[in-house]
Amino acid sequence: MTRLPIEIKLSDTRKEKPNPNSLIFGRSFTDHMFIADYEEGKGWRRHRIVPYAPLQLDPASIVFHYGQTVFEGLKAYRTEDGTIKLFRPQENMKRLNRSLERLCMPKIDEEAALQALTQLILIEKDWIPTLPDTSLYIRPFVIANEAFLGVAPSKKYQFIIILSPVGSYYKEGIYPVKILVENEFVRAVKGGTGNAKTAGNYAAGLKAQEVAEQSGYSQVLWLDGIERKYVEEVGSMNIFFKINGEVITPAINGSILEGITRKSVLEMLRHWNIPVSERKISMDEIRNAYEKGQLEEVFGTGTAAVISPVGELNWDGYKMIVNNGETGQLSKRLYENLSQIQKGQMEDPFGWVMELKSDLARLA
Amino acid sequence: MTRLPIEIKLSDTRKEKPNPNSLIFGRSFTDHMFIADYEEGKGWRRHRIVPYAPLQLDPASIVFHYGQTVFEGLKAYRTEDGTIKLFRPQENMKRLNRSLERLCMPKIDEEAALQALTQLILIEKDWIPTLPDTSLYIRPFVIANEAFLGVAPSKKYQFIIILSPVGSYYKEGIYPVKILVENEFVRAVKGGTGNAKTAGNYAAGLKAQEVAEQSGYSQVLWLDGIERKYVEEVGSMNIFFKINGEVITPAINGSILEGITRKSVLEMLRHWNIPVSERKISMDEIRNAYEKGQLEEVFGTGTAAVISPVGELNWDGYKMIVNNGETGQLSKRLYENLSQIQKGQMEDPFGWVMELKSDLARLA
Repeated sequence: MTRLPIEIKLSDTRKEKPNPNSLIFGRSFTDHMFIADYEEGKGWRRHRIVPYAPLQLDPASIVFHYGQTVFEGLKAYRTEDGTIKLFRPQENMKRLNRSLERLCMPKIDEEAALQALTQLILIEKDWIPTLPDTSLYIRPFVIANEAFLGVAPSKKYQFIIILSPVGSYYKEGIYPVKILVENEFVRAVKGGTGNAKTAGNYAAGLKAQEVAEQSGYSQVLWLDGIERKYVEEVGSMNIFFKINGEVITPAINGSILEGITRKSVLEMLRHWNIPVSERKISMDEIRNAYEKGQLEEVFGTGTAAVISPVGELNWDGYKMIVNNGETGQLSKRLYENLSQIQKGQMEDPFGWVMELKSDLARLA
Repeated sequence: MTRLPIEIKLSDTRKEKPNPNSLIFGRSFTDHMFIADYEEGKGWRRHRIVPYAPLQLDPASIVFHYGQTVFEGLKAYRTEDGTIKLFRPQENMKRLNRSLERLCMPKIDEEAALQALTQLILIEKDWIPTLPDTSLYIRPFVIANEAFLGVAPSKKYQFIIILSPVGSYYKEGIYPVKILVENEFVRAVKGGTGNAKTAGNYAAGLKAQEVAEQSGYSQVLWLDGIERKYVEEVGSMNIFFKINGEVITPAINGSILEGITRKSVLEMLRHWNIPVSERKISMDEIRNAYEKGQLEEVFGTGTAAVISPVGELNWDGYKMIVNNGETGQLSKRLYENLSQIQKGQMEDPFGWVMELKSDLARLA
């Protein structure tokens, strides 16, 4: 790969860094951001790292009206020896391109994007928090910024990367949540955009989340939009069930997002010789397993929480208490292994972790 | 209603107006726009008309990542005697509130919004083109602008109205289009956001539109996402079929947008004592009617085109040529009546048209 020319304009001032003991997810942002512009016929250009600042967008920009936007999320960790580690960032760039394709948006150069991301992180390396369970959350996203009210793909885009220091998802360690099975609202359906990481999927989910919270539940369990029988996702995470020793997760079906943590959990379970199955799983099957005492563990997987154990499932008023409402052994083992590999505290037999050399000069 | 205080800051410079003979939909915008800000706990405030200019938004604004945004579209006409007419604008404001509710966004005051819209149009009245079949397109929209990467409803919003002078949708009069029945992609499903006017629905439709255009078709006919049997919409319009003297349109079902032109067409047909039916209609039924020679007319309805006759439907390679590929009598009659009522060239027995007094002082 040829080295991408990235113009760098450093900020004259530096923000005060937030207290690492009280970091909130996605609230504070670093001093700089990466931007590249796309124009039809000219491709991606003007790759630059500039001070973090408001975007200036025409009010008629397509992103506001017709939702052409996709994003990714990943984390950088700073290990005890000062090195910076990224978890499978190539997978994020691959998925970003799959999302872009679904939304009729121009693909990015995956290697160039990774290089831009690397360079931005190295500039902002002092923003990576070092307390246990803290990290630097990375949000690459692409928005359509042509000023045009016709319903058609934009001819102009911006690819942007912003960084946010984040704390532990679990304030008091890994913590089981209560989940409401959603019967009214639908997140996505085959033929729609559920398998792309695009804004509309998240907008569609807010109402159900609001209703669930009013009843004291943390998240909703999404069912398929066609038969309203089969499990799809939990909140904005993938979901796993351990039933009678076997781990089952819904198969990729066109409406489920193909999570990178999901993929890693499957690979880790197979590495451990634990039986796993990617297939359709219905609420009836889960209820039957529960009644037989075989519903051993339930957990969500995602970048933000890594592993999120489920302590209760409420399906139309029928409450299933999973593993006495406590974190299961497998959930715990997966969480510890994944997060320790991510942070470099455990050997990485999978080759998942990318280590950044903090030699900025070499990259500039 | 109390008169809303709107702060007005007029632009020091005025743009050159586009040639009224070659107006393109949604490409040029007037000198000013309306903006109001919302903040949780403070409500809507800072209602203002300001020079049309880029919006300044934090890159972490929720609209870019989680798609909290809704919009409306309507038109202002300038009639021969110089008065300005709006078509059922109250309906747009009602629907805007229904969309806002679905997306967990704060409602607007419908009367205040209408007043803001009126005032903006009066300031921009010289931008309303007067050639036949031209109008001023009005785009009210609301975006979430809190800088936060958590998946939750924003605590901050902007309500914005922009205006665009537009030409005739049909360059050479009303013109029948070729439509491809869509079997792979799905626009929306019950429980999703299909009945809200929100960005994600339009983003989801772009791919199918791209594929249809590659095969020489103008738009796609959307089928339901569950059985893939029943007709939903055409492109971003509602759809009507005239079969054996009866006019049929898909009933509002939770995934179809409740169009204001759709509603007006139904009211006009009932006023004319033409049999109408709002119900499920399958592709099988349409094919059967076609084979019996009873598929008399097909047309789409929407603000941009008013009535858009369909000359051909292609369902998996089976081509149905409607009314010899020509505009049907009923389509023509509806188009003429609706557009003449909108422009004040025909009496309005329905009370649909709102007339603006161009006495700016009275409103300021």
